[in-house]
Amino acid sequence: MSTSTAVTTFEFDKATAMAATNSPNTSTMTVDAGFTVGPKPNGGYLLAAAARAAGLSLAKAGSSHQDALAASAHYLWAPDPGPATITTEVLRTGRSASQVRAVIEQDGRRCVDVSLTMGTLPPHGDVAVWSSLAPVEVPPIETCLRLPAVGPDGQFTVAIMDRIDLRLDPSCAQWAAGAPEGRGELRGWISFADGRPADPLSLLFLLDALPPATFDIGPSGWVPTLSLTAYLRATPAPGPLRVSQRAQVVAGGRVDEVCELWDSTGQLVGQATQLAAIRFADEGALAPYSG
Amino acid sequence: MSTSTAVTTFEFDKATAMAATNSPNTSTMTVDAGFTVGPKPNGGYLLAAAARAAGLSLAKAGSSHQDALAASAHYLWAPDPGPATITTEVLRTGRSASQVRAVIEQDGRRCVDVSLTMGTLPPHGDVAVWSSLAPVEVPPIETCLRLPAVGPDGQFTVAIMDRIDLRLDPSCAQWAAGAPEGRGELRGWISFADGRPADPLSLLFLLDALPPATFDIGPSGWVPTLSLTAYLRATPAPGPLRVSQRAQVVAGGRVDEVCELWDSTGQLVGQATQLAAIRFADEGALAPYSG
Repeated sequence: MSTSTAVTTFEFDKATAMAATNSPNTSTMTVDAGFTVGPKPNGGYLLAAAARAAGLSLAKAGSSHQDALAASAHYLWAPDPGPATITTEVLRTGRSASQVRAVIEQDGRRCVDVSLTMGTLPPHGDVAVWSSLAPVEVPPIETCLRLPAVGPDGQFTVAIMDRIDLRLDPSCAQWAAGAPEGRGELRGWISFADGRPADPLSLLFLLDALPPATFDIGPSGWVPTLSLTAYLRATPAPGPLRVSQRAQVVAGGRVDEVCELWDSTGQLVGQATQLAAIRFADEGALAPYSG
Repeated sequence: MSTSTAVTTFEFDKATAMAATNSPNTSTMTVDAGFTVGPKPNGGYLLAAAARAAGLSLAKAGSSHQDALAASAHYLWAPDPGPATITTEVLRTGRSASQVRAVIEQDGRRCVDVSLTMGTLPPHGDVAVWSSLAPVEVPPIETCLRLPAVGPDGQFTVAIMDRIDLRLDPSCAQWAAGAPEGRGELRGWISFADGRPADPLSLLFLLDALPPATFDIGPSGWVPTLSLTAYLRATPAPGPLRVSQRAQVVAGGRVDEVCELWDSTGQLVGQATQLAAIRFADEGALAPYSG
């Protein structure tokens, strides 16, 4: 008989629920069709699932470390919605940090390779003792635009836009009307659509839930993540998070993007960097940088 | 009989030389006492060693992918100078990218867990098609200050400062005279002291070779890296590289730092982010951010 870790009815918790197997280091999960971009699961969602499995394996090993201080995923093969397995290996348990490796597989094919340094985050509140980063400035949430899950052409569905309530600053959403401005930055507010409070685990998903910031540079096809690294810095305070996602350099068919999440107290709670593959529809017609 | 990969007399190549073992997936190396900070090896040096082993394993698997497009290391235990083993596993070989996992062990203890997405970098030259990042501004190299390997107290030796020729912009080196300015940024020029040209492999070391940028915030003990992620973006052109290392947020006993390397053509060739543990001598007396 398998035991499930799902204890709430929130969508994110059900989508990352793990079931035990006969092997102590392997859990099964169902890759949720609601956490997809087109036909494939979102990369941050898979990272969060791996972190949940890593926390379970540390608990079994007697460690209290449940927060991903640093987590890096390398994406080998995009799984489909449906059953998958996560095999974890506790590499070390320590006093202030422990390390776990996790691999997500489907149909015997390795899909995501994840390394995690786990620990315990400080509680919410103003925990930074020094910062060179200011919280991203965004207009009041009621003046921001919610992105729909289905675009005007009706062909490509971004199902995660129904899982989250993402409100973009209208001044960085002109690309949605076909007029990219070349800042390469998306700013706004983000929370779960079903009211689930943000917690450290779910930050791993929220750090990769925005559209590619390259949409503000020029139209492209899918921008598949090659590698995603997230640092969690503090437990988020209640309320919507402020989010910034920005592209830095496009070269050699790849782009790096940085994402930051700030809570209602102005604390940086999570930050991520990713390298993704990109092919613009017309590389000669990109909006020049205008930041 | 073991075969060595060392083909030059440059220090970096000797320090990352791999010797084959009877196991096809395991190489041995000697952690070099010249690539240390205090008694322990530099984290970027170990990342570069893992990437070299990953490239060897891909060549054996018939893949031409030799450049680390994205590499992330989680540090479990700092090895000592002396023999170590690197065990690699090729997770996938693909057309444009391949993935490898590598573990550095010493005396049966796992020290570094590395995940790599390998591929082929574009040649040097201006390969960026879009960028929101300008090359870091640094004064002429002859007006910059070379950091010595041994500090004024003579107690703590940073041996890597003899491996590299690091010239810091004097305007961000006041901390060395006991007057941190609170910008949390170090800028300068970097190259190998023995004249070895920078190449993609060695960028992995150079991306972690600067002192902690937190030295410009306040004095602290060792700032051990928990996790380091590097993206390589282009093959560097000949000549010294411009380098920027900056601290972003200090919270919960941890700091994140960003490093960027630019070549003589103004191309971003490498970038890294790291999360490190930090304990300031006096957290109440930090230089406030002045950037």
